[in-house]
Amino acid sequence: MNKKRGKPLFEERLQEFEALFYPKSIAVVGVSADEYKAGSGWVTGLLAANFKGNVYPVGASGGTIAGSKIFPSLRSIPGEIDYVVVCIPRQSVLELLDDCGFKKVKFVQFFTAGFSEMGDAGGYELEQDVVTKARQNGIRIIGPNCIGAYCPESRFPCGPSPRARIGLDGSAGFISQSGGLADKLVEIGIARGIGFSKGVSFGNGADLDAADFLQYFAADPKTEIIGAYFEGTRDGRRLFDSIRAVAKVKPLVAWKGGKTEAGAEAAMSHTGSLSSSAIIWSTMLKQAGAIEVNSLEELADVLLLFQKARHWQGGSVGIVGGLCGGGGGISVSAGDACSEEGLSIPALSKATRHELISILGRVGSIVHNPVDISQGYGRPSILRKVMEAIMADANIQLVIVQEDADILFKYGSPQVVDTMNSTLMDLASKCSKPIVVVSPPGSSEVKRLKMENELSQASIPVFPTMERAARAIARVNQYFCSH
Amino acid sequence: MNKKRGKPLFEERLQEFEALFYPKSIAVVGVSADEYKAGSGWVTGLLAANFKGNVYPVGASGGTIAGSKIFPSLRSIPGEIDYVVVCIPRQSVLELLDDCGFKKVKFVQFFTAGFSEMGDAGGYELEQDVVTKARQNGIRIIGPNCIGAYCPESRFPCGPSPRARIGLDGSAGFISQSGGLADKLVEIGIARGIGFSKGVSFGNGADLDAADFLQYFAADPKTEIIGAYFEGTRDGRRLFDSIRAVAKVKPLVAWKGGKTEAGAEAAMSHTGSLSSSAIIWSTMLKQAGAIEVNSLEELADVLLLFQKARHWQGGSVGIVGGLCGGGGGISVSAGDACSEEGLSIPALSKATRHELISILGRVGSIVHNPVDISQGYGRPSILRKVMEAIMADANIQLVIVQEDADILFKYGSPQVVDTMNSTLMDLASKCSKPIVVVSPPGSSEVKRLKMENELSQASIPVFPTMERAARAIARVNQYFCSH
Repeated sequence: MNKKRGKPLFEERLQEFEALFYPKSIAVVGVSADEYKAGSGWVTGLLAANFKGNVYPVGASGGTIAGSKIFPSLRSIPGEIDYVVVCIPRQSVLELLDDCGFKKVKFVQFFTAGFSEMGDAGGYELEQDVVTKARQNGIRIIGPNCIGAYCPESRFPCGPSPRARIGLDGSAGFISQSGGLADKLVEIGIARGIGFSKGVSFGNGADLDAADFLQYFAADPKTEIIGAYFEGTRDGRRLFDSIRAVAKVKPLVAWKGGKTEAGAEAAMSHTGSLSSSAIIWSTMLKQAGAIEVNSLEELADVLLLFQKARHWQGGSVGIVGGLCGGGGGISVSAGDACSEEGLSIPALSKATRHELISILGRVGSIVHNPVDISQGYGRPSILRKVMEAIMADANIQLVIVQEDADILFKYGSPQVVDTMNSTLMDLASKCSKPIVVVSPPGSSEVKRLKMENELSQASIPVFPTMERAARAIARVNQYFCSH
Repeated sequence: MNKKRGKPLFEERLQEFEALFYPKSIAVVGVSADEYKAGSGWVTGLLAANFKGNVYPVGASGGTIAGSKIFPSLRSIPGEIDYVVVCIPRQSVLELLDDCGFKKVKFVQFFTAGFSEMGDAGGYELEQDVVTKARQNGIRIIGPNCIGAYCPESRFPCGPSPRARIGLDGSAGFISQSGGLADKLVEIGIARGIGFSKGVSFGNGADLDAADFLQYFAADPKTEIIGAYFEGTRDGRRLFDSIRAVAKVKPLVAWKGGKTEAGAEAAMSHTGSLSSSAIIWSTMLKQAGAIEVNSLEELADVLLLFQKARHWQGGSVGIVGGLCGGGGGISVSAGDACSEEGLSIPALSKATRHELISILGRVGSIVHNPVDISQGYGRPSILRKVMEAIMADANIQLVIVQEDADILFKYGSPQVVDTMNSTLMDLASKCSKPIVVVSPPGSSEVKRLKMENELSQASIPVFPTMERAARAIARVNQYFCSH
């Protein structure tokens, strides 16, 4: 989606951040033979994920962890070190930065907390001292109070756990001031089939801040869409300018946490962020061309839709429900949900409606839009004919299919449900108009998740409710209309 | 919750509707030996569910179904018939009603469609003729175009399927103009632990309408809360009066479908309902004292909370996150979500905050409200101490715990997660303040669903997002404040 030809925007960031996402070696400082310590989790996590570079555990007590020798100090490591994870108490971090300078470390990520987010002078001053000392030594700081980089390509897992999984490699990059939310976004990606190019959680953002990472993602050829979770920034003007520049070349989906008083107070304690008011942030994001969302679920929904759905023109949706019966109430509520998100649900052409009546009959059918195909009584051949008719209708640019696993498996056989899903996947592969599936949770979760996984692999995005699908479609549509 | 002592409101409905929810015998008309016909699904469904009364299949072609003889006509059935399910084409229904009159049938439920929802004179007249003939014969009509009664106690399943399951028996009653949504609500109940006293889907509501069923639920001693999905009504005044009377004695949670043009058009084709504007319905529901919701998910959320949570006083919530780390961003976004729904998130008392600092330490903790217990590093004993401190705080009436299975199982062992959940269940059983859990979906669904199921059995309501939990709490709180 990068429309600019020639030299990419912020190209210098690619070289500069190479060692952040693709470090040749990582040292973890604050490790002991106790696998349950946080520092140890970083080491076992990197090893379990088959991280592509060297991993050096560092800890004063020595010993081994997961078969690797624990070095007594950073200076005692024989090779070069690109990236250091800091897990020692804050009292010792300035001294450590001297060692990092000696070893010509490029990036230092502080898992350690206890800086400006403490809300006292001591924490703030320590954070300033860290930044000053890092700059003197040519080191860039990630954090403090964060879990740093995530990169499926270099097998750099997200967070300190031997069970940290590498998700799908893909086109979405993300930045997050929260480690926990970054972690969860990776898991949602695994669940829903969102592939990530890379991501970074940067906590307090004392040195490298949102603006820096956004610039990297703008330049990164692997990244086509960007997700962002902000709590606050030290330099609003710079962030605004970066968002505006980045959003011109790639869709930037932004969620601001701490918009209410209760949220803002937590943000102050979490990442030391002074949150401005909700309206200021919303206005800023809008003016800068970002797509604003209001929760992690919405952030994931929009990334998913950008990644899976083809570019479409015009926001008129067709809605199909009742695949194995029971599509009346669904048609009513789907019409409401899509209308409330501002989507257009146009009447089908006269020719399409005649065709639908010839396929479904009049009794018990709804052949406006939404279309209730209950009268197809679960026959996949009927679903195919109906879908072909609607997708061929010039009034429709995108089709939402409501598939409810509870109802499908209650009224249809497993073979019938399989054939229905293959039909949707086949149609999606052949038609330039996107198909979006709504598959609400219920009592058939194992079957539903299998269905969702298959559809997702066939590039059909799946949403848990009509409201969330409609909201994501409205946002992506608005982006397509203005780009 | 029925506050009136003495004679219950609408007591006469109990006797009148006895044969609807507890029929001694059901005849299904329109059955053949082909198990895949809709009529046959009713028979196999009733038999598979071990329905407590007699089941008589009726079909002109004779033969047997699932080992039962198919009677050639209603008149040829030897015993009495309380309830008839009609699955024959609309052309033959008037004749059938003569047979029903002859057999002194009490309730006739039309699965058959093709009446006023057709939007033509023929369909409307046929519906009128059905009602007229039914009244002449002392018969009450459910529908047409519906799936009728659901009653766990009499093992009357919801909808025509041999796989129809009987869910939990419990305190929630529901009415729905849509069969599909009734069906889905039952499945959501199975998934989330909502127990139903009984429910009814009534489609076009040509004879018995929403008002009649609401009156029954007001009187029914098994029903303590009522859920309702409306599309429209033929007698707005009567519905308003009924809602007002019923909502005085039991919480009535109401969702109106067809509020937008697209939804209303579908409602006309679905149940022949002329939807009034959204604002008229919302005003009416509010004036009548109903609790309005806007989707099936919200309807289920509010029923769940009423059913599981103890009555509380005052809407001040405490929020706890970061059970195995990563609670910072969660605290920020939870604060936002609860504030946006109008909940109060008061500061904890000075004593509570001191206690939390002594438990968690200051570095990396958030001891305002929301409380981030990341620094407990997944120790269940810390969770217990923190929860006890917060639940003892006089400023707090209800505690929301954000438990994320992805994060819990990534950073904690299965034993630790088990102990944390037992801790929550133990606290919930001992304290009069309700505990609500938010457990967001992700990549650990099988483990998460097991956790949700255990919590739910211990009467802890579980929600998939903080937004949905907050919205449900706000609605129930508003009800408690005004009752």
